[in-house]
Amino acid sequence: MIVRERENWFKMLFVWKGSVLPAILPRLGALFLVSVGVVYVQGKLFEYKIPLNPAAFTLLGVALAIFLGFRNSASYDRFWEGRKLWGALLIDTRSLTRQAITMSGYTAGSREVLVFVRLLIAFTYALKHQLRKTDPQEDFRRLLPPDLVQQLQNARFKPILLLREMGHWVQTGKETGKIDSITQAAFDHNLNQLSNIVGGCERIASTPIPYTYSVLLHRTVYLYCFLLPFGLVDSIGWMTPLIVVFVAYTFMALDSIVTEIEEPFGTEPNDLALNAISQTIEASLLEMVGQEIPPALRPRKKFILD
Amino acid sequence: MIVRERENWFKMLFVWKGSVLPAILPRLGALFLVSVGVVYVQGKLFEYKIPLNPAAFTLLGVALAIFLGFRNSASYDRFWEGRKLWGALLIDTRSLTRQAITMSGYTAGSREVLVFVRLLIAFTYALKHQLRKTDPQEDFRRLLPPDLVQQLQNARFKPILLLREMGHWVQTGKETGKIDSITQAAFDHNLNQLSNIVGGCERIASTPIPYTYSVLLHRTVYLYCFLLPFGLVDSIGWMTPLIVVFVAYTFMALDSIVTEIEEPFGTEPNDLALNAISQTIEASLLEMVGQEIPPALRPRKKFILD
Amino acid sequence: MIVRERENWFKMLFVWKGSVLPAILPRLGALFLVSVGVVYVQGKLFEYKIPLNPAAFTLLGVALAIFLGFRNSASYDRFWEGRKLWGALLIDTRSLTRQAITMSGYTAGSREVLVFVRLLIAFTYALKHQLRKTDPQEDFRRLLPPDLVQQLQNARFKPILLLREMGHWVQTGKETGKIDSITQAAFDHNLNQLSNIVGGCERIASTPIPYTYSVLLHRTVYLYCFLLPFGLVDSIGWMTPLIVVFVAYTFMALDSIVTEIEEPFGTEPNDLALNAISQTIEASLLEMVGQEIPPALRPRKKFILD
Amino acid sequence: MIVRERENWFKMLFVWKGSVLPAILPRLGALFLVSVGVVYVQGKLFEYKIPLNPAAFTLLGVALAIFLGFRNSASYDRFWEGRKLWGALLIDTRSLTRQAITMSGYTAGSREVLVFVRLLIAFTYALKHQLRKTDPQEDFRRLLPPDLVQQLQNARFKPILLLREMGHWVQTGKETGKIDSITQAAFDHNLNQLSNIVGGCERIASTPIPYTYSVLLHRTVYLYCFLLPFGLVDSIGWMTPLIVVFVAYTFMALDSIVTEIEEPFGTEPNDLALNAISQTIEASLLEMVGQEIPPALRPRKKFILD
Amino acid sequence: MIVRERENWFKMLFVWKGSVLPAILPRLGALFLVSVGVVYVQGKLFEYKIPLNPAAFTLLGVALAIFLGFRNSASYDRFWEGRKLWGALLIDTRSLTRQAITMSGYTAGSREVLVFVRLLIAFTYALKHQLRKTDPQEDFRRLLPPDLVQQLQNARFKPILLLREMGHWVQTGKETGKIDSITQAAFDHNLNQLSNIVGGCERIASTPIPYTYSVLLHRTVYLYCFLLPFGLVDSIGWMTPLIVVFVAYTFMALDSIVTEIEEPFGTEPNDLALNAISQTIEASLLEMVGQEIPPALRPRKKFILD
Repeated sequence: MIVRERENWFKMLFVWKGSVLPAILPRLGALFLVSVGVVYVQGKLFEYKIPLNPAAFTLLGVALAIFLGFRNSASYDRFWEGRKLWGALLIDTRSLTRQAITMSGYTAGSREVLVFVRLLIAFTYALKHQLRKTDPQEDFRRLLPPDLVQQLQNARFKPILLLREMGHWVQTGKETGKIDSITQAAFDHNLNQLSNIVGGCERIASTPIPYTYSVLLHRTVYLYCFLLPFGLVDSIGWMTPLIVVFVAYTFMALDSIVTEIEEPFGTEPNDLALNAISQTIEASLLEMVGQEIPPALRPRKKFILD
Repeated sequence: MIVRERENWFKMLFVWKGSVLPAILPRLGALFLVSVGVVYVQGKLFEYKIPLNPAAFTLLGVALAIFLGFRNSASYDRFWEGRKLWGALLIDTRSLTRQAITMSGYTAGSREVLVFVRLLIAFTYALKHQLRKTDPQEDFRRLLPPDLVQQLQNARFKPILLLREMGHWVQTGKETGKIDSITQAAFDHNLNQLSNIVGGCERIASTPIPYTYSVLLHRTVYLYCFLLPFGLVDSIGWMTPLIVVFVAYTFMALDSIVTEIEEPFGTEPNDLALNAISQTIEASLLEMVGQEIPPALRPRKKFILD
Repeated sequence: MIVRERENWFKMLFVWKGSVLPAILPRLGALFLVSVGVVYVQGKLFEYKIPLNPAAFTLLGVALAIFLGFRNSASYDRFWEGRKLWGALLIDTRSLTRQAITMSGYTAGSREVLVFVRLLIAFTYALKHQLRKTDPQEDFRRLLPPDLVQQLQNARFKPILLLREMGHWVQTGKETGKIDSITQAAFDHNLNQLSNIVGGCERIASTPIPYTYSVLLHRTVYLYCFLLPFGLVDSIGWMTPLIVVFVAYTFMALDSIVTEIEEPFGTEPNDLALNAISQTIEASLLEMVGQEIPPALRPRKKFILD
Repeated sequence: MIVRERENWFKMLFVWKGSVLPAILPRLGALFLVSVGVVYVQGKLFEYKIPLNPAAFTLLGVALAIFLGFRNSASYDRFWEGRKLWGALLIDTRSLTRQAITMSGYTAGSREVLVFVRLLIAFTYALKHQLRKTDPQEDFRRLLPPDLVQQLQNARFKPILLLREMGHWVQTGKETGKIDSITQAAFDHNLNQLSNIVGGCERIASTPIPYTYSVLLHRTVYLYCFLLPFGLVDSIGWMTPLIVVFVAYTFMALDSIVTEIEEPFGTEPNDLALNAISQTIEASLLEMVGQEIPPALRPRKKFILD
Repeated sequence: MIVRERENWFKMLFVWKGSVLPAILPRLGALFLVSVGVVYVQGKLFEYKIPLNPAAFTLLGVALAIFLGFRNSASYDRFWEGRKLWGALLIDTRSLTRQAITMSGYTAGSREVLVFVRLLIAFTYALKHQLRKTDPQEDFRRLLPPDLVQQLQNARFKPILLLREMGHWVQTGKETGKIDSITQAAFDHNLNQLSNIVGGCERIASTPIPYTYSVLLHRTVYLYCFLLPFGLVDSIGWMTPLIVVFVAYTFMALDSIVTEIEEPFGTEPNDLALNAISQTIEASLLEMVGQEIPPALRPRKKFILD
């Protein structure tokens, strides 16, 4: 996630980091050269004049507007739903911690509560690692007892097994008389929520926007852009390269942003800062049980939280 | 569901598998020939000049944009709601399994828990088979006791009867003192969720977008496309076939994609991978109760999960 | 609801049943004649040339797009919300039946459970009749005891009184020791849902889209269509009637569809098949309690479920 | 709320009551005169020709479409959310009544139940009066005991104090052994819902769409309309006043409708019929407890429910 | 939040306070001067004619419409979700107060209830101060016991620790026999809601709309506006500055509004009136427990609630 301060309106026109310009610059350059060529030959190919005009592009604009508009909102919805799920993770782990402290017979500083809180924190990192396909061992080792780390090593759905452990923790509390049936049901309600969060993230991660849409939009955008110089050269002459690149910049940049945010759990600049959120969760839960909290997360790269 | 890796922007322009191009190619070909004919006769039919121009098509574009935009989002909403329901199925079957292990007097490996988990897995496959109108016998036989298989044979709403069996299982647990009233209510909450999932899927499957919309949109798209050559021939001459086919490609391809995804439970390339999800559910539940899990599902056709 | 199979793309162009064409044909015919007249007099009225051109209609297109787009999605949302409510009815009546069988001391085949299930079925038909303003007596007589039929005869909110009866049924179960407090709360949760469904349907039925919108849209569409021939005659000559009728078809057909679906509980071709859903509910509940289920509903009119 | 029957398509073109035409007629008249003047002077002001054309207005159309489209859907969402909240009020008061009859030790006709039902009805009217800033004394006096009326006289949040009274009623039931803890929780769930309804209505009433939007849209619409004659006079001559007034009618009428419905709790023609809904709630609750219900509400003004 | 009364349609055209005009006036002025210059040189730069026309800008309009439309609705959704969360805060604190009075063994005026209500009020202010990054000490000191104020001084997540205190309050009530398990669960349900509210606000505050969008939109708007004079000068001559400034006003004003409301918790004129809502919550809770309520909040600046 990019965390620049909003500049004043003028400086913002010249932002480089946090813009998609670097990524699409080569394509825009190629298009610029094509446009200059088209102006040079006056829109002719091998002596044949290409008879295009802006009207044809207006007709194409209808389809383009629908595709881009749709893909943009569908991608942003995925991004924002992903963020909501991780917000819910912060919410529910806090609620479970509050329940462990104030609805059981345990006290805030007790060993049992600490075990439970560490399960919650490990669950958070497990989900992050699953979504980013990275190795959770390091985080597991500092948070969980060795035998559980062992047991999780080859598991396919690690966060789910951690949820099961939390269920066992509550059950043990019930068996030792620290938690009654009704309180168990209250815990269970929030464990169901955690299950929702895992499932929701897996859904977003495993089911992209139908591939056929991306292909269709992609083709339409690029064909449109590379035909455009022929459509404009007769009416705006040597301004053609400038306007073509401007139009293409808007379309390609949008195509590029949405490709980033439609998979919100990755590590590209506009993706969600799962790492930062995980650390916030850890800090907040530790504060609740009176433990020292690690220093606030600082962006490792300037402007970017990962 | 198509599971290609996203190519780089250039290769993606020439994707064949996972594009709808193959399906609509004959129609685009026909339209190309018509356009070439129109260019050849200079837009005349039996000596009568057809006096059309792009302005008329701009007016038609308003209606077309509304129809396509609406049908596209309505279809995608159906697709995504279907996916959410199957995501919820994964979530709720896991939650029920967690409840069976950690809120009852049964242990994870006990015969009773296995019976319950098999009911959940059978429920999943039953729903898949109902939505795809295929025969669930094979899956039932490997998961359920023979008398239940028998009883389900001629049933009309099989997943619902399996839900009833789960209710009986919980009731039996209560009668034998393994489950108390409050825990029964917690189970019941998640059984209600499963009921929601069945009903939601049945709703999407049984109530398409009103047929009249499809007819209206379909007619508008095709009439528009086949009139278009006459509107463009005067201004863009021999480029007419190219632009007409380009415009028609965008409209027909969209019409074709949305027709696929508005019935998301089928087996067309862009439909939901119900088979893969069912197998994920089976794997995840078995892992939770400590059973060996079958090897991860591999796509049977290249690029496509069914 | 129209239940045609989706034809291939070519046949679909000539569908008659299930298209709104029959309904708007007279108006389109009138418009065709007006257009022919306008072409004949070359856009003059009593020697005065009407100086219109497509540009004016492009400006009007902005407002038209907003009105049509808005009214279309608002109407479809009402249609789909109505469908969701009836889907929830299927879901909740099944859940209540499951609760009656597996959470009380009654068995599936007992007289008490049958009484309850018949209350649920009667509730379904009562809601259907209330929404369609038809007489529920016939359905009540075959499902309910005579004194209850009597009591409901003059009631104004019949489904609500049936809900109260269900509440009494649960209360009786509690008094006779078949249902405990916690199970009563679980029943109560689903009875609240039924209350939501009744209220939701009443809301849609009693509060249309503000009338002023319909008037505004309607006027804009028709004034637009009948002015259009004057705007096109100079540029497209004798093609004017064809294009005008094509444009008008798209707008009038949409106006016509949305008028049908914005009141989704009626009996027009595109309305919800309340009858079919009610019969599905009846069949599903009877199957759950082991009763014989009536033969599946067959469409009474070809292509149409009512 | 306007409750006209939907006329046939032809009569609907000439509806007067229930259209916003009366309200904006003076402005349209002024614009008509300006347009006639512009035609008369051939688009010149003091010998200076105003050189405008439709193209400039097409560019402005983009912003106008976004503003109008956004403000329209945001306003309608407020209207429809308000309606949903009042629908939920009907639902929840019915559910609470059902609970009072079938989950407590009281009988339907008992004095205690009547007291509770009157609290619910008074709550409904209190909310209506609060939203419309009218005096609830008359309704309170016929429904509540004198000392409670007294106590509410100077209260700032009257519905909330009535909610507290309902809480006390349930508590008293618990203390006298008529209601157990679990049933109290079921009541509490629905009392929370009533709290949601009050808060939701207060939110809509106290937070309009940001004022700056309205100013921006308003200015754009009027500046656009009064510049339009200069843009059209050269191309459509004496038809200018007609087309300008037509375009302006669509924009001003929409501006006018959304201003009405964005504050849905008022008493303008398109606002919600809070009075009618309150009386429906009263009738439905009284019917449930076997009391005589007042005669159905009849519209006091023809076509309009307030 | 701006709280002007809606003026009549004519006066509203000349509103100054509560319009964004002051903020963007310098930029519009600069653009006006540029446009006048372009008219003066007849669209030539150093003897080179800039050959632009409106058609190029129509093509750009497609992208602009998508960007502006998307950013506008995404920002408004954030604003409105923020408002909903603060509405929910009012709702849930009232519900918790009602529960404290009517579901525990405490009476409305008891010291314990007052302690709880003050925790709720302090929670509200703590959230406000966290979101606005201001110092909560003053509010804490008048509401909380000194040792708790001390404990919160260096806490990072203050509202969460207050939530924990509420949990302890309920637990103490349970230990002293004033609150039973079921009532504790009812409290817990609403404490979970408060946790949702904190998390929801933190989510909106910490995750802006991806920065890349803002950069892209911003650039497109300004480049479009400063190129526009060259596109219009040939067709509308000396009217160019007027129309350019009009078009630019609509785009820049929208860009400016959405930048304000997408961070809804700040103190700019169109932001949410968190201060006013906090005081309403305080007043409402105090009224419920029979305490004197502070005088109603009056806007400190004319027209603006902060």
